[in-house]
Amino acid sequence: MGEFNFINSMLKRVKNFGSVATGIGDDCAIISSGPSSLVTCDMLMDGSHFLLDQMDLKEIGRKILSVSVSDIAAMGGIPETAFLSLAIPKTMTSDILNEMMIGLLDLANEFSISLAGGDTNVWDGKFVANITLLGRPSCHGAILRSGARAGDQVFVTGKLGNSFKTGRHLTFQPRIKEALFLAKYYHPGAMIDISDGLASDLNHILKQSGTGAVLDFDSIPVHESLDALVPDLRIKRALTDGEDFELCFTLDPSRAKVLIEDPDRFFSVWNVGKVTEKLGLFGGFDGEVELIDWKGYEHGVNTVR
Amino acid sequence: MGEFNFINSMLKRVKNFGSVATGIGDDCAIISSGPSSLVTCDMLMDGSHFLLDQMDLKEIGRKILSVSVSDIAAMGGIPETAFLSLAIPKTMTSDILNEMMIGLLDLANEFSISLAGGDTNVWDGKFVANITLLGRPSCHGAILRSGARAGDQVFVTGKLGNSFKTGRHLTFQPRIKEALFLAKYYHPGAMIDISDGLASDLNHILKQSGTGAVLDFDSIPVHESLDALVPDLRIKRALTDGEDFELCFTLDPSRAKVLIEDPDRFFSVWNVGKVTEKLGLFGGFDGEVELIDWKGYEHGVNTVR
Repeated sequence: MGEFNFINSMLKRVKNFGSVATGIGDDCAIISSGPSSLVTCDMLMDGSHFLLDQMDLKEIGRKILSVSVSDIAAMGGIPETAFLSLAIPKTMTSDILNEMMIGLLDLANEFSISLAGGDTNVWDGKFVANITLLGRPSCHGAILRSGARAGDQVFVTGKLGNSFKTGRHLTFQPRIKEALFLAKYYHPGAMIDISDGLASDLNHILKQSGTGAVLDFDSIPVHESLDALVPDLRIKRALTDGEDFELCFTLDPSRAKVLIEDPDRFFSVWNVGKVTEKLGLFGGFDGEVELIDWKGYEHGVNTVR
Repeated sequence: MGEFNFINSMLKRVKNFGSVATGIGDDCAIISSGPSSLVTCDMLMDGSHFLLDQMDLKEIGRKILSVSVSDIAAMGGIPETAFLSLAIPKTMTSDILNEMMIGLLDLANEFSISLAGGDTNVWDGKFVANITLLGRPSCHGAILRSGARAGDQVFVTGKLGNSFKTGRHLTFQPRIKEALFLAKYYHPGAMIDISDGLASDLNHILKQSGTGAVLDFDSIPVHESLDALVPDLRIKRALTDGEDFELCFTLDPSRAKVLIEDPDRFFSVWNVGKVTEKLGLFGGFDGEVELIDWKGYEHGVNTVR
């Protein structure tokens, strides 16, 4: 499979949703942009983020793009234009590549994302894909990690833990609509998507906000596939497994109360804790809290599960 | 080497030249942009684009960014903001990584490019780097591949061939200043950077412009390291070796004449042929031309040299 054949077959499938002035086929793409752009990159490798010989190829293709869409969601933004770079094993058939591209382009269409360029290479190594996704902040501004304040309530948008075994690391729905609803009506102080596990990702918010937090373990929405475990282990798995790709955000107490009772809210939220002046991340059952020092998932440092 | 350690060490070295509102450390970078942006991606792999165990590490780091800068030059644009994704072998020491980063950031500083984000991963495979580089078109507009017209003269900005053996594939100077000079004073019809070899890259211009061209082999600036070869082979190497990263551009005849005699021109140009109505790329010595059907360098399809 030569790189030009692949580029040509892609050209036929790509939709332009308006952000692309000049797409695939020149030295650079030319895209129309507003005064500020969101940019995120994710590199995914066979054996680390997915297993090509064991998992559904369309779902793998979907994941290659959806992890980046989730990053745009975490800023309360709107995804617009994607660029895909590939290192393709010499032995890979075009059927495998096409299946992945179908999954990727289906997700692109679902979120009106234009694929505007990239780079394809063939090599002796394993399959590697890099997505660079550009988007724009909503008119309510980008939501950073640094805006949590003592007294804020901490929320998550979905069940946590065991994402790999249950396949949710491939099939999760990036929370773009939820993030835009929150940005418009609730102005979250801080927001992040949960890729390394709630413990690790909430810690990013806390460090950049100069605050701490206390988690109420009784309120953590642990995924039901972990029900058989003892409570301590269930919570540890929910907080450290990673790749949940749910949103974690903070709201001041008055807005938190309104959100919980909002009849127009079309998605679940769990109020899992609160932000504190005291630094560090603490948590426990029944109000008895201890410092949480579990490490989140770090690709390549932890073993692949 | 954990990914967070690497990110932290990078944070200390990165300069912001003004395009970055929020850089490394949130879910997305936020960059300021004009009404349109140039975007290019290049994925480079150990064993394909460089050999980590045989080549200078700073020069490898430099190349990882400079190939993308060359793509911005080919549009007559100005590079602004880079994003770096890495798949780092588990066995790689931080010294090796740091040497590469010094080379990369030196080039970034030379061209006032801000490194605003990326993604780092550690894995069992070989070293892979992807750069996404954003830039802006000059006020004279982007120069596409599609603007060559019959009668135009074809130029190149430097010597061609044997880039791998002579190390120029690592140390070449991206032709940003030259491209901006050309965009401002000469409005080239079409422009491309020579990555796969002049034969292959000029063919991209011809196909997208709906034209052909004739090359005068006596005018091709073959790199002097190929002087010992017979003439036919010298030309073939110059036209197909690839990774010269010189510019190839077209100018109407009146502008071509002025450029050749322009006392303000601070770089070399060679007038290597002319654009024709007749489709296809032809060339020869002493005006005796034949169809050129040599393939250019295609990573992974050709063997690594």
